Amino acid sequence: MRLAVIPGDGIGPEVVSEAIKVLGEVVPNAETTSYDLGASRWHSTGELLPESVLGELAEHDAILLGAVGDPSVPSGILERGLLLRLRFELDHHVNLRPGRLYPGVQGPLGDPGEIDMIVVREGTEGPYAGNGGLLRKDTEHEIATEVSLNTAFGIRRVVSDAFRRANERPRKHLTLVHKTNVLEYSGSLWSRIVEEVSLEYPEVSVAYSHVDAATIHMVTDPSRFDVIVTDNLFGDIITDLAAAVTGGIGLAASGNLDISGRNPSMFEPVHGSAPDIAGQNVADPTATVLSVSLLLDHLGEKEAARRIEASVAFDLATRDQASPGTTTAIGDRLAALVSSNAAPRPAL
Amino acid sequence: MRLAVIPGDGIGPEVVSEAIKVLGEVVPNAETTSYDLGASRWHSTGELLPESVLGELAEHDAILLGAVGDPSVPSGILERGLLLRLRFELDHHVNLRPGRLYPGVQGPLGDPGEIDMIVVREGTEGPYAGNGGLLRKDTEHEIATEVSLNTAFGIRRVVSDAFRRANERPRKHLTLVHKTNVLEYSGSLWSRIVEEVSLEYPEVSVAYSHVDAATIHMVTDPSRFDVIVTDNLFGDIITDLAAAVTGGIGLAASGNLDISGRNPSMFEPVHGSAPDIAGQNVADPTATVLSVSLLLDHLGEKEAARRIEASVAFDLATRDQASPGTTTAIGDRLAALVSSNAAPRPAL
Ligand SMILES: CC(C)[C@H](C(=O)O)[C@@H](O)C(=O)O
Ligand SMILES: CC(C)[C@H](C(=O)O)[C@@H](O)C(=O)O
Repeated sequence: MRLAVIPGDGIGPEVVSEAIKVLGEVVPNAETTSYDLGASRWHSTGELLPESVLGELAEHDAILLGAVGDPSVPSGILERGLLLRLRFELDHHVNLRPGRLYPGVQGPLGDPGEIDMIVVREGTEGPYAGNGGLLRKDTEHEIATEVSLNTAFGIRRVVSDAFRRANERPRKHLTLVHKTNVLEYSGSLWSRIVEEVSLEYPEVSVAYSHVDAATIHMVTDPSRFDVIVTDNLFGDIITDLAAAVTGGIGLAASGNLDISGRNPSMFEPVHGSAPDIAGQNVADPTATVLSVSLLLDHLGEKEAARRIEASVAFDLATRDQASPGTTTAIGDRLAALVSSNAAPRPAL
Repeated sequence: MRLAVIPGDGIGPEVVSEAIKVLGEVVPNAETTSYDLGASRWHSTGELLPESVLGELAEHDAILLGAVGDPSVPSGILERGLLLRLRFELDHHVNLRPGRLYPGVQGPLGDPGEIDMIVVREGTEGPYAGNGGLLRKDTEHEIATEVSLNTAFGIRRVVSDAFRRANERPRKHLTLVHKTNVLEYSGSLWSRIVEEVSLEYPEVSVAYSHVDAATIHMVTDPSRFDVIVTDNLFGDIITDLAAAVTGGIGLAASGNLDISGRNPSMFEPVHGSAPDIAGQNVADPTATVLSVSLLLDHLGEKEAARRIEASVAFDLATRDQASPGTTTAIGDRLAALVSSNAAPRPAL
């Protein structure tokens, strides 16, 4: 297993190093190569993602990314030039984001019930296409456009993936989240394709929710969600909300998948680089460890993936929530649990 | 005071009739004219908003709308042909949505602290412009575009309104919610204008939040928000979430304002027509009553507006939350409170 690792900025290197520690317990012979990308490379060389590095990254089985971003870099530079560029260049069309409230974790909702959803967020088009422009810039008559680009091809592959996942889950339920009553063009295309693909999955029940109503359900009745499929921007928004109601972005993992397997998929915690707490050994590496579990699952190492997730679930159920320990202490605990295989299988 | 009333569909007529009952206690000589628009008119005549009706509506001081929408009408028809058409034709550029957790109301958050925000949502452009299209419709190669249109003119007038409101509130704080790191064109225009207008309001502190992070804050730390200014689509999403965390859309009021005063502003509860509970005298008219308070405030009847809001606050603090009473009972209670002037002034 050849992994490219992008530790990145802020707490990125710290959480990634714990995640690799845990990975070592299940895949002792994993080969990792670290790539220096992010704020400091941009500051010292002006480079964001050189073609040669992109080429090398593409040679790996998967990529593990910590976090990129720093207040010293103007907003958008690293996001568009590095993170989104990786997702687009490597055709990461399925942005996979599980939202599970683990036993023992207290989220902000008083009494949420069981939460166990997966959001399949489209990752390579929609409002993220970067298409748009400015006219009469810096005048009183300036106009800015943003063009959301949606293709039958691009939507079908993520909708198919979402149905496949729903079909394998006990509840077999899928919710399309969009805003079809206002965004009539993209809305009609998404609706048509969900309808078409649903014919191939007669056992999967299908629901629809406007994105605004979905945010209400996310806080009043999150149990209703099983698999959600949605566009790039709505997915960005509701996965942060889903992370919040399941205990925070400190626990939220994600995978940017090229389902075709042509390019390596990339795994990253949903949280950012958190420069305010960087270098203090206080960041929670759990989201990155869970991202490694997604990585292993994607590479077919199902048993190893399950062992890591079970260890995290066990640790979350038993840790002192108020002071879960330092970054390295949590990493050590999770590594020990994984290696001892002590954690029971999660009831997923 | 000449009011146009659009009771609309589902629970619309019921909640509007209670709101007018309450209005009668503070403005006994208000003249109301009812307009039959919505699902049943569309079914019987195919009409959504005839020019002549639009012309008549425009002659009024303000419009009160219950709710439009019915499952028998294909999604989007009434929304785009009636509701959004009214907002656009009457230039309702400021979509004003207060989010306040009233004492006695238990929302879904375990321990939210005090919540008292106002969202100033842009109402006449952005992704709601209806600009976009389809290519190769109904084929495997279909492409759908949605163009978000953003103008310096359109943004400046809502940003100015938001700063004006922030400047009058005790905390004098304004948060721009957008996604500037991805939507670079509209993001740069919104950021520039917020920066420019902020110079006119040196006492107002300004913050920025990406829309995804804003949904997290809305459930983990909603007290941080005072005035939020945001675009049409982000505003749609976060105001539903704000309504959810302040006790639900049954309590959320809104105003669609033409600040210039050229056209009548329109007031409506944030909730929909709820056809499943229509005609049963169980819908909560509180959101519509609060919308009447916003209407009066907008027309300069500040004292009457305050009396209604104080009565609602009093009723919410004292009502049996589990069974607040029928639609008419709540309306009667609120009317009695308003008329007796018994409710103490809210500490706003
Ligand atoms: C950093 C940003 C570009 C990114 C996104 O919008 O996709 C982030 O919010 C995420 O969800 O991974
Ligand atoms: C019904 C719909 C068109 C509308 C909107 O999106 O603005 C509603 O959600 C609202 O917030 O008033």
